[in-house]
Amino acid sequence: MDGGFAQPHGGDLGVMSALFPDAPRPWIDLSTGINPWPYPLPLLEPALWTRLPSAADVVALKQAAMAAYGVTDPDAILAAPGSQVLISGLPFLRPAGADVTIVGPTYGEHAPAWVRAGHRVRMIADLPDLGGPLPDVLLLVNPNNPDGRTHDPARLRPLLSEIARRGGWMLVDEAFCDLMPDLSLAPLAGQPGLLILRSFGKFFGLAGLRLGFLMAPPDMVRAMSARLGPWAVAGPALAVGAAALSDAGWQADTRRRLADAMGRSLSLYRKAGMEILGHTDLYALLREPEGRGLFIGMGRAGLLIRAFPDRPGLFRLGLPPDSVAFDRVASVLTI
Amino acid sequence: MDGGFAQPHGGDLGVMSALFPDAPRPWIDLSTGINPWPYPLPLLEPALWTRLPSAADVVALKQAAMAAYGVTDPDAILAAPGSQVLISGLPFLRPAGADVTIVGPTYGEHAPAWVRAGHRVRMIADLPDLGGPLPDVLLLVNPNNPDGRTHDPARLRPLLSEIARRGGWMLVDEAFCDLMPDLSLAPLAGQPGLLILRSFGKFFGLAGLRLGFLMAPPDMVRAMSARLGPWAVAGPALAVGAAALSDAGWQADTRRRLADAMGRSLSLYRKAGMEILGHTDLYALLREPEGRGLFIGMGRAGLLIRAFPDRPGLFRLGLPPDSVAFDRVASVLTI
Repeated sequence: MDGGFAQPHGGDLGVMSALFPDAPRPWIDLSTGINPWPYPLPLLEPALWTRLPSAADVVALKQAAMAAYGVTDPDAILAAPGSQVLISGLPFLRPAGADVTIVGPTYGEHAPAWVRAGHRVRMIADLPDLGGPLPDVLLLVNPNNPDGRTHDPARLRPLLSEIARRGGWMLVDEAFCDLMPDLSLAPLAGQPGLLILRSFGKFFGLAGLRLGFLMAPPDMVRAMSARLGPWAVAGPALAVGAAALSDAGWQADTRRRLADAMGRSLSLYRKAGMEILGHTDLYALLREPEGRGLFIGMGRAGLLIRAFPDRPGLFRLGLPPDSVAFDRVASVLTI
Repeated sequence: MDGGFAQPHGGDLGVMSALFPDAPRPWIDLSTGINPWPYPLPLLEPALWTRLPSAADVVALKQAAMAAYGVTDPDAILAAPGSQVLISGLPFLRPAGADVTIVGPTYGEHAPAWVRAGHRVRMIADLPDLGGPLPDVLLLVNPNNPDGRTHDPARLRPLLSEIARRGGWMLVDEAFCDLMPDLSLAPLAGQPGLLILRSFGKFFGLAGLRLGFLMAPPDMVRAMSARLGPWAVAGPALAVGAAALSDAGWQADTRRRLADAMGRSLSLYRKAGMEILGHTDLYALLREPEGRGLFIGMGRAGLLIRAFPDRPGLFRLGLPPDSVAFDRVASVLTI
């Protein structure tokens, strides 16, 4: 499971400052998988803050999202204030007591959300076989977090058909799929049994904006929408989201930029003797050589990386935001 | 019920432009009860947009809200992306089939939210008697929207005790209570059976920000929080909310400013022969003299006001934002 160190999602630099009082300031947070080069905020007209979000604002965002993700049915997509509220809320759309199987280890918020809603959760290492027993809900993250493992859509499609035929759900969290659009099942959005989550803040580097999407059969979109009510997404998020999702040029440039940056980071990790267990272009999962003390070394250098309490020696590192940060990482790794 | 005209919550100026093609532009929207003089946005540091909202951001907002509202138990308050998501979500925290009584007519989103969650809803004109039958859930809006009717806390407290004793809920929507803080039950927040909703966007004039609060017993706060997940409120909303709710001076000035402005509007309405059915300092409910055609007159002048399909002749008017708007209203009313 993708647990946490000191705080579930990194970023608690107050705790780190107390643990490492002599570390150089400011702290550099490499514990997330958020793009360090955010989409530039467009000018936000005052009405986006002052009035209730309008139906036209929502339509504009949805159209941009449909084009970006390849969704064709407007009734099969719902905008939400971040994908987390969907992760937390979707388990309550199914009567308690479902058998939920999570392909993992993966992002740590999924399992507790299903448990809280009264379901039974187990984890399996690989996709189940088509011929074998299938759960009521199969949940996977594609590409996976924290190890970057990918699931081929060609393998997912027949599984979806069989799960849907039995009245089950396949929930695919595509939080990092902007990096690898070919993996996405979004073109199938609306098909029975298929639930897809997309996150806006990670690839676009605007996690504080709170914007995410559910793609699902129209009846499930309506059920989730009824629980969120109208105006769940803030006016500025609607406008920034519509602009960013429409900007195919920025998206293509960003994919290249992130790939280049991750290439440089991976070279550094390899030279430093780290084992690279997997990666996307926003994070890499490393195993340190035994006794290396990577977390402490990073902490002394003012760098926060992601540790996993139940998997000692494994760390996830996001992209250093600039050459100062890169050089600091390099200096820790090469001593 | 507080239904809608053309669109549930006013503001669809596209429709109005089509109905009144010769109206002067831009349209002036008096159909909402939102403060037209918003809290000035503080400088928003980029990290509020780029990183996930931190626990410290949430704590700062909650502390400001507790001080502003008079809440003492930090486990009895939850921030949400607008109070609407609470209106939509709370009915799902109770097993379907509850008897829900709404004191009305009132804000139109409450009844459908309870119906959607499988409950039975009826409306009564006045608070129920202590000795008589009591519903599972008693819902009221204080001060009420659209007529400004108030419920004395001294009368609500014994009702709450009796409802709570029977395992019921009293849900008080205090969306406009910043205008009349003495009405608020927030100092009782955390007591069994008491659920309070507060809205940030109306009094502070920032409805697009999406910020609201639930005050409730800690177990209900936890249940609602589990459905929203962490990070449901955007980083900018946390920061703006904390600044505005801490700014007691601005709040006091704004109460005076709104009272003065509503005083001027009410004088105008009286002189024009309108019957004032009720008001707060952000909206007034008027009955027009028969055959007056107020909505059409306003529409021709580029002014959108709130009509109620099931109560012809009644209109809710918000505050004109400036002297141009005020004069335009005056010119319609005095012809």
